Amino acid sequence: MLIDVTDAGDPRLVDYVGLRDAQLRRPEVSRFIAEGVKIIERAFAAGCTPRSLLLQPRWLPGLRELIDAWPDVPVYLASEALIEHVSGFHVHRGALGSFDRPQETGWDELLGGRRLIVCEDTVDHANLGAIIRVAAGLGWDGVLVSPGSADPLYRRAVKASMGSSLALPWRRMASDSDLQRLRDAGFTLVASTLAPGAVDLAGLEPPAKAALLLGTEGQGLSDAWSAAADRHVTIPMAAGVDSLNVATAAAILAYALRP
Amino acid sequence: MLIDVTDAGDPRLVDYVGLRDAQLRRPEVSRFIAEGVKIIERAFAAGCTPRSLLLQPRWLPGLRELIDAWPDVPVYLASEALIEHVSGFHVHRGALGSFDRPQETGWDELLGGRRLIVCEDTVDHANLGAIIRVAAGLGWDGVLVSPGSADPLYRRAVKASMGSSLALPWRRMASDSDLQRLRDAGFTLVASTLAPGAVDLAGLEPPAKAALLLGTEGQGLSDAWSAAADRHVTIPMAAGVDSLNVATAAAILAYALRP
Repeated sequence: MLIDVTDAGDPRLVDYVGLRDAQLRRPEVSRFIAEGVKIIERAFAAGCTPRSLLLQPRWLPGLRELIDAWPDVPVYLASEALIEHVSGFHVHRGALGSFDRPQETGWDELLGGRRLIVCEDTVDHANLGAIIRVAAGLGWDGVLVSPGSADPLYRRAVKASMGSSLALPWRRMASDSDLQRLRDAGFTLVASTLAPGAVDLAGLEPPAKAALLLGTEGQGLSDAWSAAADRHVTIPMAAGVDSLNVATAAAILAYALRP
Repeated sequence: MLIDVTDAGDPRLVDYVGLRDAQLRRPEVSRFIAEGVKIIERAFAAGCTPRSLLLQPRWLPGLRELIDAWPDVPVYLASEALIEHVSGFHVHRGALGSFDRPQETGWDELLGGRRLIVCEDTVDHANLGAIIRVAAGLGWDGVLVSPGSADPLYRRAVKASMGSSLALPWRRMASDSDLQRLRDAGFTLVASTLAPGAVDLAGLEPPAKAALLLGTEGQGLSDAWSAAADRHVTIPMAAGVDSLNVATAAAILAYALRP
């Protein structure tokens, strides 16, 4: 259903208003925003239910099949300037989609896997998205995020994940004590740390079921999470370099411990 | 030399004007900008020559030793608002430094190493900085960038590298034919590619001297660079995921082929 829009105050665009604000960083919001044609396509491919699209008309031909398959979904057509005005940021190549927020994956499914990444307070959306993209790309079974972590379905996290946060199983932990669920299900908790005493990653025999615990950039894992881990592993650093970016470290660890 | 500044038009701040503009992306500019106290400290530690600093006064105590060691270097003290107004962007925690641009590393030194990353047209500053950080962190000897790549000393690249682009040897290639210099020096050119026929990274015996060729995100390596390579290696991807971010892939490759 194509609808031309020329008024930035059009109330039908409510899903797209003020996307730079923190409102959609709250996971309780019932929708998420896909930014760019590729991410919109991946949201459809992941089975997400569209609420509406907001596009420059130039994107219509490429999205024609999807739009035809969802004839009741409003497709608002607007200028790049209007899209930027409504959303409050420069929308790269002018295509946004609003979708119903999918359910988080249940514990049973996650615990049935053999490789999980567990993020403690990953607050940066780009890092969180990159970690999820790595997990999906390297065949890991899912991601858990601590209560203090960013939202994997926030616009920028979805984009950084290249849509993987829509397809890879993930769940937010209710509390730190959910780490015990992992151990009870047979997972070895492997802490990534630069602390002394950790084993060199190259010397770690990958466990049958591994949950890789990643800390915050800068601080690393909390004492509580580090104490909860079964193994402590480190990526040896060259002299004079103190750390890697958390997503970069995740990539190396997820590769070395790949399923 | 502490100097209070209250006028955003003060001509002494010329190094800091309009940093969002493309001017400093041109490598011929004779300076670079360090953003944030940590990067400023790393620029000093790397032996870079300061031209001036522009700070909120709150950062003075932490930088006192460096400022005392360079008594002739002007340290402009200004409000966060003034710094933002001059620079044209929100300066995270209000500290900038302008330094003389260091010389690029000579060929002899680079070719004397055993592990080099070679970036073909890495145009994203964050990705380029992340790649340099990875190379430094994992003990690689240096980085080469193609003529079309971004500037490793552009503000955002320096920041993303956590200052590694000031410490790790690197050089811009004059042309693609510089790849031949690498081969002549005994390097095996290892192309990272998703093209069919590439060997699984896990099956690649690391060469004695390896030059890892990384393509652009999205397109990958050009046909010319791919044809110039001695080996073609791939990181196996899970079904349904087409690629990793170039910096993430670089991390995995640099780890697997670590010196």
